[in-house]
Amino acid sequence: MKIGHLFDVSPSGADGELFDELAAGDHVRIERIVSTGQSSPPGFWYDQESHEWVIVLRGRAGLELEDEGEVVELGPGDHLDIPAHRKHRVAWTSTDEPTIWLAVHYR
Amino acid sequence: MKIGHLFDVSPSGADGELFDELAAGDHVRIERIVSTGQSSPPGFWYDQESHEWVIVLRGRAGLELEDEGEVVELGPGDHLDIPAHRKHRVAWTSTDEPTIWLAVHYR
Repeated sequence: MKIGHLFDVSPSGADGELFDELAAGDHVRIERIVSTGQSSPPGFWYDQESHEWVIVLRGRAGLELEDEGEVVELGPGDHLDIPAHRKHRVAWTSTDEPTIWLAVHYR
Repeated sequence: MKIGHLFDVSPSGADGELFDELAAGDHVRIERIVSTGQSSPPGFWYDQESHEWVIVLRGRAGLELEDEGEVVELGPGDHLDIPAHRKHRVAWTSTDEPTIWLAVHYR
C-alpha cells in the first residue's frame, strides 16, 4: 500500500510554489500545491479549460473571482468549485506558514 | 462565491456515517465522509467500478486491502489511490473523534 503524506513539506529551499500530482485519470488530475507567499501576477487571471474543485488545508489565502470583484479569505477546510472559464486569481497567500491546497481538476 | 467548510460537522444526532457530495462531473465525484466508529461488516469488501483517491484529514482509520492482508493505520494527511476493483475494507475508525475523509471517485 503506497501511502502519501499531504502535510509533509520537505524544506526544499526552492523559491517557488510546489506542485505535486497525487493521482490522475483521463478526465481528472489531483494536485497538491504548496504556496509560501506567492500570488498571481497583477492583472493575471486563470482561465481554465477544466473545472477545479479546490480546498485550503493549511495556511491562508485570498482568492478573487473576476465576476465578483472581491477577495475572499480561505482558511483550513474552506473549499469551492470553480467552473471552467470562470476567471480567478490568487490575491495573496500566507507568509507566516506554508499554505497547502488540494486541487481536483476535472471535466 | 459559495464556500464550503469541510471540518464543520454539525452534530446531527444521526447514528450512521455521513456522506456529502461536494462536487461532481461526468467522470468524477468528490465526497466527504464522516465516520464515528463505523467499519465495514466482517467479510465485506468494497469492489468498485471507479478508482478512488482517498485521504484522511481528521481522526484515524484502519484500512485493509485484500491482496495485502494487513491493516494500515491512516491519520491526518495520509492518502492513497485505490484502483478500480482492488478490494478493500475499513477495518475500524476512531471512536474518540470523528474521522473526516475526502474521497475522489474517478474513471
